[in-house]
Amino acid sequence: MVLRYVSHVERHRKPVIALLQVAALCLLTSCSRRPPLPSWNNGPAKTAILSFVEGVTREGGREFVPRRQRIAVFDGDGTLWSEQPMPPQLAFVFDRIKELGPRHPEWKQTEPFKSVLEGDIRGALARSEDSMDELLAAVSAGMTAEEFDGAVTGWLATARHPLLNRRYTDLVFQPMADLIAYLQESGFETIVVSRCAVDFIRPMAARTYRIAPMRVVGGGLNLAYEVRGERPALFVVPTPDPVGAKAGKPESIQRSIGQKPILAVGNSDRDREMIEWVTSGAGSRLGMIVHHTDEVREWAYDRGSSIGRLNEALSEAEAKKWLIIDMKRDWKVVHPFQQ
Amino acid sequence: MVLRYVSHVERHRKPVIALLQVAALCLLTSCSRRPPLPSWNNGPAKTAILSFVEGVTREGGREFVPRRQRIAVFDGDGTLWSEQPMPPQLAFVFDRIKELGPRHPEWKQTEPFKSVLEGDIRGALARSEDSMDELLAAVSAGMTAEEFDGAVTGWLATARHPLLNRRYTDLVFQPMADLIAYLQESGFETIVVSRCAVDFIRPMAARTYRIAPMRVVGGGLNLAYEVRGERPALFVVPTPDPVGAKAGKPESIQRSIGQKPILAVGNSDRDREMIEWVTSGAGSRLGMIVHHTDEVREWAYDRGSSIGRLNEALSEAEAKKWLIIDMKRDWKVVHPFQQ
Repeated sequence: MVLRYVSHVERHRKPVIALLQVAALCLLTSCSRRPPLPSWNNGPAKTAILSFVEGVTREGGREFVPRRQRIAVFDGDGTLWSEQPMPPQLAFVFDRIKELGPRHPEWKQTEPFKSVLEGDIRGALARSEDSMDELLAAVSAGMTAEEFDGAVTGWLATARHPLLNRRYTDLVFQPMADLIAYLQESGFETIVVSRCAVDFIRPMAARTYRIAPMRVVGGGLNLAYEVRGERPALFVVPTPDPVGAKAGKPESIQRSIGQKPILAVGNSDRDREMIEWVTSGAGSRLGMIVHHTDEVREWAYDRGSSIGRLNEALSEAEAKKWLIIDMKRDWKVVHPFQQ
Repeated sequence: MVLRYVSHVERHRKPVIALLQVAALCLLTSCSRRPPLPSWNNGPAKTAILSFVEGVTREGGREFVPRRQRIAVFDGDGTLWSEQPMPPQLAFVFDRIKELGPRHPEWKQTEPFKSVLEGDIRGALARSEDSMDELLAAVSAGMTAEEFDGAVTGWLATARHPLLNRRYTDLVFQPMADLIAYLQESGFETIVVSRCAVDFIRPMAARTYRIAPMRVVGGGLNLAYEVRGERPALFVVPTPDPVGAKAGKPESIQRSIGQKPILAVGNSDRDREMIEWVTSGAGSRLGMIVHHTDEVREWAYDRGSSIGRLNEALSEAEAKKWLIIDMKRDWKVVHPFQQ
């Protein structure tokens, strides 16, 4: 009888364990669930996000998307953190130029170095957003990838935003942190896409949104593997990667992720192609534009701004019914310290 | 009294839930644990792997590595699946050349197309391993990334290895499947690195090792985003990406993963730099070479082979005490169908 019972247990061991595991999993997830998007006001944007995520995660439903295809891509500057009056990597570059200036007498004659060294940030800005990859290469040539990462990490720990006197890592958007947490809990991979500053964005995204380095994709420093005196490392080449710098966001995403995401969030014309691509084709898809409309808690800018211009992408968003997030209307708080 | 009890429960709710969650997590993991590496023979290789993984996962131990740094990189051809007499992507390219031949009369005069079309595979092989990126570009120009993925998937479902009459997806190595499963259970990210054929390796790695596309990194097709007749897509450019093709494996890994792995597995001179880099520096690190020594169950080749030559990397492995896996001695089975 005992033996029969044992063999009975043995025979049923696997299903019993499976059942216990399901119960354990339910316990694990349900206990920690809070209502999603707490820092979002109730309204059309929040409703649209909740309805999209509920649709793609409802098994058996018409909108269901299997877990392996739930990829969400986010622009960085202006989408995950403030980018006015200049994105953080540009502030980093300007600080590095001032630091390295004494060792580069030729910079006194070359723009935008000259303007930075003379303290004319407005003049430097006018010439630098488009040449970010050249600037990053110039201020990091000869460093190893690890040294560059260390320099960024050190800078993030001490540098302060010139107008708000806050650390750059404090200037993230609480509603985006809530959105990313909600998506991750719903089985999404959340990916940050940068045009040319991936090596800067990685330490930034790790410290602010706990996004692992491999989930930050795009162009970056031009690196070459070399063994210098028994020490193998990746060294920054003084000239930017000619192909990487040209590549658009859809190209970078396909190269790194190998599949088309189903959700894309951006805030400027530089994100237009990415959102256009991600929202095209079959199945449930969502494109979102963060519209900076809050001149009190952050900044208000769009079609006319030199940093983060939102012109064509705003028109396309209106025409194609992408979800436009009105920062002033839709966000209960902007930065975490405003909570 | 009841009220006091409720408030008592409320106050202790969080720690109680946390305890239940820990219990649930233990249940989830312990029930499903089997002894690792079942298809490996007991011996120095298996012992070295177990001891490395136990060391880096033992919290508080001297060798401990936090989960976010547990990255393992694997070469594909010859490391995860057989590459003799030619790697699967080359067999795919040859089949595509035969299929597309009638639309390309110029191929009758150009090598290696000419040899392939004339059925001289040996002649074609002699000219093609180094020009894989040109060949892949030639047979896929004008396709979208999704169409190329579909073509590979279709080919994998039907093509058969010319000598073994097996599907290419059957020619994976069971011990590597066990190793990858063991590493994943131990909190590792497992990444496949390809020099130039990432778009081919992705469907292959997904079907064989269930590795997601974003965990396959390296060079690949040169893609350009374009909207053709309302349909936005990434189209294959006829010429290979000039930078991607030049980049070595350390460069590709740093660009995609953003950090140095702690474990690298390869089988040929093309993996030498990757293993040299990964095993250098502080902390617990492991480099492994799969040595093809089994002429009965697979193939035996190394220093003199034109495909998967293992010469310099074998000398360096011996000198630097990388772990050399002797396929014949260390593997209980090679391919899953031999079980």
